[in-house]
Amino acid sequence: MIPTPQSPAPQTVEDRLAALEQRLHLVEDRLAITDLIYRYGPAVDTGSADDVLALFTDDGVYDVDTGRLSGANEIAAMINSDLHQSLIRQGCSHLMSAPQINIDGDAAGVVSYSQLVLRKPDSDGFTVLRTTVNHWRLVRTDDGWRVAHRTARRVDGSAAVRALLGSHSRTR
Amino acid sequence: MIPTPQSPAPQTVEDRLAALEQRLHLVEDRLAITDLIYRYGPAVDTGSADDVLALFTDDGVYDVDTGRLSGANEIAAMINSDLHQSLIRQGCSHLMSAPQINIDGDAAGVVSYSQLVLRKPDSDGFTVLRTTVNHWRLVRTDDGWRVAHRTARRVDGSAAVRALLGSHSRTR
Amino acid sequence: MIPTPQSPAPQTVEDRLAALEQRLHLVEDRLAITDLIYRYGPAVDTGSADDVLALFTDDGVYDVDTGRLSGANEIAAMINSDLHQSLIRQGCSHLMSAPQINIDGDAAGVVSYSQLVLRKPDSDGFTVLRTTVNHWRLVRTDDGWRVAHRTARRVDGSAAVRALLGSHSRTR
Repeated sequence: MIPTPQSPAPQTVEDRLAALEQRLHLVEDRLAITDLIYRYGPAVDTGSADDVLALFTDDGVYDVDTGRLSGANEIAAMINSDLHQSLIRQGCSHLMSAPQINIDGDAAGVVSYSQLVLRKPDSDGFTVLRTTVNHWRLVRTDDGWRVAHRTARRVDGSAAVRALLGSHSRTR
Repeated sequence: MIPTPQSPAPQTVEDRLAALEQRLHLVEDRLAITDLIYRYGPAVDTGSADDVLALFTDDGVYDVDTGRLSGANEIAAMINSDLHQSLIRQGCSHLMSAPQINIDGDAAGVVSYSQLVLRKPDSDGFTVLRTTVNHWRLVRTDDGWRVAHRTARRVDGSAAVRALLGSHSRTR
Repeated sequence: MIPTPQSPAPQTVEDRLAALEQRLHLVEDRLAITDLIYRYGPAVDTGSADDVLALFTDDGVYDVDTGRLSGANEIAAMINSDLHQSLIRQGCSHLMSAPQINIDGDAAGVVSYSQLVLRKPDSDGFTVLRTTVNHWRLVRTDDGWRVAHRTARRVDGSAAVRALLGSHSRTR
């Protein structure tokens, strides 16, 4: 005898509303996180320490190969440094691209590439100063998603940087 | 005495449906705007004036540092110009990236970077001809979002271009 | 006599739930497809054949100007080749950008640019090795969206590559 297929229990309006709310919440999280990552470029290229700090938690860490910056004071000091301000005056573009987003409740991990393009001093064209692998550890705060920890490493062919590039499942 | 916390009034089905419809509409707007911005690259690189004009309102303005183009005729003339067509034959890629989108009802402001990469004449590699800061002023039309006004400036280290880069909150 | 305008029939809760479910499904598809495209970069740059193969159907085709790779064995062989592994050790970044997504039920077509940036051997800066036009033909499987066929062509100024760039409406 061929078994009668079981119909699934009919979904109630409450079930369907709850499922929609949960799914839409996740979609909104993905878009908010994409926006957060993309905002870093203009924030750092306008040279606004306030705009950069707004992306991080108060004790956020920006661990980049040129130095580990821990908390708002150290991050602001990098933005206001002669080195960074001279890049800005020469004409730099931090191009953020292709975030891979992994959300786990109120935490998220993101791996993304970025590219630093610099106007050549003689104004004739532009050069790619570096590509960078980024791992972002994000947390949901009362004011939305913020960067708790960003690791950024210049692409150099090493196994360590490739491991970072493969780490998007790490959210904590 | 510790005050009894007020429970929020229970949400009705109507409330929840209306909230979902409003939130989803905003998500769809963001994706439609992202698509509109991204479409500019292939439209201009295939050299199709029709595809480029489809992105703009009929009286749309494309104000770029190489010239201010006002309305469909002037924009089409740029696409069909010898200069642009020779870039296309050499092999150019307008890479659109990282839009920051700010929606205010039927208007929206977007700041994004773009990058113009050109094949070298001797075919041995590619060069970044320029990075560009874009501010897009968009309007919702009966046919969807369209570009009413785009300002595009080559990154040159100037305060004016940095101000444009910081202008994503401007929607009108 | 001026005709009385017809009010539209009031939408039932069932109508509104069904419309929300359908629209949200499409939004989720767009985000899942964007994620699939973006994942290619880190997968190929970490040199993981498993990660690259996970993006394709079992009989997926990757038709690139340097050779047509048909099925998992040929794609894995390219990843594991001396040529690709030497690019990885030198430091390469496949930057995926700006997908134009066209969904038609369980099939989708995507056109996107990608950019291959390579660290210069002497470590002093980076160079754009190529920009590439990609057409992706995707299918929905039980495990989510997968690449059934990817065509990738180096930007070379030819009419054939421009035609590929204009092909995002092609989903099958």
